[in-house]
Amino acid sequence: MDAGSPARCAAIIGTGLIGQGWAIVFARKGWDVRLYDVNAAMLAEARTLILQQLRELEAQGLLTGADTIIERVCAADSLADAVKGACYIQENSPEKIEIKRALFSALDAVAEPDAVIGSSTSSIPASQFTDHLPGRHRCLVAHPVNPPYLIPVVELCPAAWTSPQALETANEVMTAIGQKPVLVRREIEGFILNRLQGALLHEAFRLASEGIASAEDIDVTVKDGLGLRWSFMGPFETIDLNAPGGIADYCARYGGLYQSIGATQGECVAWDGALVDALSEERRSLLPQEDLAKRRFWRDEKLMRLMRHKQDNGDNNG
Amino acid sequence: MDAGSPARCAAIIGTGLIGQGWAIVFARKGWDVRLYDVNAAMLAEARTLILQQLRELEAQGLLTGADTIIERVCAADSLADAVKGACYIQENSPEKIEIKRALFSALDAVAEPDAVIGSSTSSIPASQFTDHLPGRHRCLVAHPVNPPYLIPVVELCPAAWTSPQALETANEVMTAIGQKPVLVRREIEGFILNRLQGALLHEAFRLASEGIASAEDIDVTVKDGLGLRWSFMGPFETIDLNAPGGIADYCARYGGLYQSIGATQGECVAWDGALVDALSEERRSLLPQEDLAKRRFWRDEKLMRLMRHKQDNGDNNG
Repeated sequence: MDAGSPARCAAIIGTGLIGQGWAIVFARKGWDVRLYDVNAAMLAEARTLILQQLRELEAQGLLTGADTIIERVCAADSLADAVKGACYIQENSPEKIEIKRALFSALDAVAEPDAVIGSSTSSIPASQFTDHLPGRHRCLVAHPVNPPYLIPVVELCPAAWTSPQALETANEVMTAIGQKPVLVRREIEGFILNRLQGALLHEAFRLASEGIASAEDIDVTVKDGLGLRWSFMGPFETIDLNAPGGIADYCARYGGLYQSIGATQGECVAWDGALVDALSEERRSLLPQEDLAKRRFWRDEKLMRLMRHKQDNGDNNG
Repeated sequence: MDAGSPARCAAIIGTGLIGQGWAIVFARKGWDVRLYDVNAAMLAEARTLILQQLRELEAQGLLTGADTIIERVCAADSLADAVKGACYIQENSPEKIEIKRALFSALDAVAEPDAVIGSSTSSIPASQFTDHLPGRHRCLVAHPVNPPYLIPVVELCPAAWTSPQALETANEVMTAIGQKPVLVRREIEGFILNRLQGALLHEAFRLASEGIASAEDIDVTVKDGLGLRWSFMGPFETIDLNAPGGIADYCARYGGLYQSIGATQGECVAWDGALVDALSEERRSLLPQEDLAKRRFWRDEKLMRLMRHKQDNGDNNG
């Protein structure tokens, strides 16, 4: 932010984990953040939980001045108070169409005329909860990955009636707060990220169900193999660099092999029954149920260190 | 290696990029390495190229004593000389069945009686080039990722006749040299890694062909999203931690969504024609053809720094 320019204001509606994460993302970049939740108890504790996470980020060297940053975050007494003066609103309610329809009606009625309203939904296209709104042109999906303060990608998915201007504003806001917006040009189930994850998961389940490999060995193949390059290059850049002449050369060399493999990957196995029992048993032998929570802290600390590493290496270019 | 125990010896047959990589992996762990290649010119320069890579790894803090390590690597005058005294042989010839059949015949004839012979092939099951050998029980695929000194996973894939003892030896050798062996229990096209990569690539090509997203945005979704966790956790551990009750809970919550997505992912688009032209054009606008080689150095340096980061964080546990 330029010195002297007034802080911009974002409203975060719904203050569960995702909402708290969004508050951190905005506040650490100098934005004023107003929180609101219909659940008064959740709203009351949100600021404390956000401060805890800010301090953890500070301890890991990912930001400085947690106690200053939290001063920019305040809980509002009402939805109308929360959105007053906010140029961007991020909605984080439960994944139920009826809840989102009602909440977007209320938001559209009280938001500033030029405010843009993004939804954190991971599974419901904006067309299903904004069609009835006078201001539907300013609504879209802005799907983060949890926690958004460590994983920067945000999927922007407009409805057919979302205006180019609203999309552009959302894109500008996400870029301004340091996130990495990607554009999902048309509404599609799972957007991009979960479709890519799903494709890999389906093959992982298929290999496990056919007894080709253990879940642990499939995990090793990703974390000590594929995932290393993918943490700083996408799949297209990876193959672009893996043939002397680039991606076209790669497709000419290996397209046949991948088509042949692909012909055996069409059928999805069901994620239930004996297969899930066996996978669950294997995971629980590696990580007992009672250690799941502790392992989530391990994961988040790993992510923090990785992001610190990427920061230190100036990892912001393509 | 225990102090005082004699150095173990590995033979590297075929001294192109992959063979050079294997030489580094063995030599940096104290093994004696014998190189052989039918191409005398390639063999003659291999040691120099290996030393260059060792020095680059030393410069990046990934090893010390490049000049000592290279002393353990020597070029042999013949195949027989190369394998003499070697308990493990890694074959790295071109991906042609007839070449591998002839080479394995020669290797099986001269190798030490209890030596195990692994092939670096990424696409040909061992059964297709070892069926005729008296010593076929000691042959298997040991498929690395390039460069193996930065990407530790190795896919071990036995033929039906590979002995459990040979598999166990290969597993022990790979673990001893610091690689991460995974077991492909039955021969399957693409083994595990390329099947997983292919599944994700097919969805990436599908999204691009349908105009849902640009190649660049698909890449961002992986490198600033999915790939971050996958660089230290596999896909199963990732979902195991993404639902309160673990993987079984995740499958119950999200299995339906992924099945619904999966039902639209069966058909593979062809990697040719206008689609590849468009992808290539987009990639070349981001990275001109003449910068491909430079970008590969960038990638390898990124990988080196990432591996240094993982080393520093004691990233060797599950």
